[in-house]
Amino acid sequence: MITIDALQYSRWSSEIFRQMRKGGLDCVHVTIAYHETALETLRNIGAWNQLFEQNNDLIMRVGSAEDITEARQAGKTGVIFGFQNCSPIEDDFSLVEIFYSLGVRFMQLSYNNQSLLATGCYEKNDPGITRFGKQVIREMNRVGMVVDMSHSAERSTLEAIELSQRPIAITHANPTFFEPALRNKSNEVLRALGDSGGMLGFSLYPFHLRNGPGCSCEEFCEMVADTAEIMGIDHIGIGSDLCQDQPDSIVEWMRNGRWSKTTDYGEGSAAQAGFPQQPDWFANSTHYGNIAQGLRQKGFNQQELEKIMGLNWLRFFETSFGPH
Amino acid sequence: MITIDALQYSRWSSEIFRQMRKGGLDCVHVTIAYHETALETLRNIGAWNQLFEQNNDLIMRVGSAEDITEARQAGKTGVIFGFQNCSPIEDDFSLVEIFYSLGVRFMQLSYNNQSLLATGCYEKNDPGITRFGKQVIREMNRVGMVVDMSHSAERSTLEAIELSQRPIAITHANPTFFEPALRNKSNEVLRALGDSGGMLGFSLYPFHLRNGPGCSCEEFCEMVADTAEIMGIDHIGIGSDLCQDQPDSIVEWMRNGRWSKTTDYGEGSAAQAGFPQQPDWFANSTHYGNIAQGLRQKGFNQQELEKIMGLNWLRFFETSFGPH
Repeated sequence: MITIDALQYSRWSSEIFRQMRKGGLDCVHVTIAYHETALETLRNIGAWNQLFEQNNDLIMRVGSAEDITEARQAGKTGVIFGFQNCSPIEDDFSLVEIFYSLGVRFMQLSYNNQSLLATGCYEKNDPGITRFGKQVIREMNRVGMVVDMSHSAERSTLEAIELSQRPIAITHANPTFFEPALRNKSNEVLRALGDSGGMLGFSLYPFHLRNGPGCSCEEFCEMVADTAEIMGIDHIGIGSDLCQDQPDSIVEWMRNGRWSKTTDYGEGSAAQAGFPQQPDWFANSTHYGNIAQGLRQKGFNQQELEKIMGLNWLRFFETSFGPH
Repeated sequence: MITIDALQYSRWSSEIFRQMRKGGLDCVHVTIAYHETALETLRNIGAWNQLFEQNNDLIMRVGSAEDITEARQAGKTGVIFGFQNCSPIEDDFSLVEIFYSLGVRFMQLSYNNQSLLATGCYEKNDPGITRFGKQVIREMNRVGMVVDMSHSAERSTLEAIELSQRPIAITHANPTFFEPALRNKSNEVLRALGDSGGMLGFSLYPFHLRNGPGCSCEEFCEMVADTAEIMGIDHIGIGSDLCQDQPDSIVEWMRNGRWSKTTDYGEGSAAQAGFPQQPDWFANSTHYGNIAQGLRQKGFNQQELEKIMGLNWLRFFETSFGPH
């Protein structure tokens, strides 16, 4: 069974990569930029190149479905780069192709706030995709970089689904019917996403779960089953949003970047300012088996289980990455 | 016969690319940065990506000897990226691999002036390769980016030949025995270069030629023959340094970058501040046949001629580009 996680942002280490191998993780989409400029993003890629060199027995960079098969055969976890914001392309559409060449396969059009391309999910008003946004979606479609609307607002998301010539993804979010977080997605978005051939990755970030860290694996799998009813079994996967071993300074950076002079707590609060605790059944990358077991118990058959755990993402990657 | 030019820096246009096709040019190493920062270099690559899109019937990006064969078969001129200075990597060795990933296959360690890596040919004192320079040479060796010392000073060049684990190149310069320009190279450098498996590309930039634009094709070919005696027939090729259709503001940028508050005229003078005129027998990329004919008349046999016109560079690329 192929296992793919469509989002993690951990404090990367050989220990974490070993956990990925132990958990049977074949491929992971990792965030390499939140608020970074183009140059800062190059430096992040530079740091990743050193991780690849130092851990070449555990991980390898992948940029296509074929690469993932190659990684599996080599007993390594394939790593796909992605941005959670469009800051790395600054105001220059031509940086889309350049970052594609460097292995970037996902870019969120916005991260919580209004961006140059689209509106984020924490803004009061959502005017939809901007003029520059339309140009960038076209360029992403051309080169084969996936539009990711995980942190974007409703109207912008629906417009991105409509405007994009190729299916888009929400790599890490849950339905609002399960937990009414601003980051989660309405049934309307889920239906439009599924109908257009897009993909949803279910998040295990506690703020996206019913009862936070107290959410049971059974509740999570119930949500998966309910979402499959809405979107179809072929359009769902895992996008755990696992942020492992990170100091709280990182969640502060994610939430505040350089844009907020006063502290913004995002989904947290002054009383709970740091990273939330993970549910104990999904604390790290050795725990994908718990999800698979939960899904089996929820009544998914083997074929459905394989689709959710990784096959749907693999098929999506096959047609989404690279020029048509 | 395969034709490779190991350096041009023209004001690129479809017209120039058509001349390359007409002249039978199979591959050209183009300069994409002189004094640019990392970000500015990304923008230059962005502009090149648009040239590739708009001229995909004439040119294609190449990064390996195999790619050049593919370009030939497709009837296109392969384009290899290179830097004439190390400014794009700023102070960060990890940018070497990143620019390699974006297609850069040559980097000069310095351009006329002292750089963070090595000394330029116009400096009075040449302390040799710096501490950072040694790190960068090692990294260039690892990823397979060629050390180019065309604009570097003598001691730095000899040290680079010595320090580099892989043969280096002087992509565009002539011997000082032919024309005693500061940019040209001593017999000692030529011998060390040839003995180490490196390559020299003969320049057709008038300041590197005897009598400037008045240099005859016969004189040029005589110089090639004399150099072959010193370096061996397997270590020489063409590196025309053709700067076609450029406004004089470009040669000002090449010479002054942002480093000189007063105007530096480089090889020129206040009286002759702009680009020099090309010899009429090598005015543009349709004229490679004139060189081939001149070499034949000078007495080179067919095999030797093919080596000089492109085969030597192709073989050098085969072992120089990419990790070992």
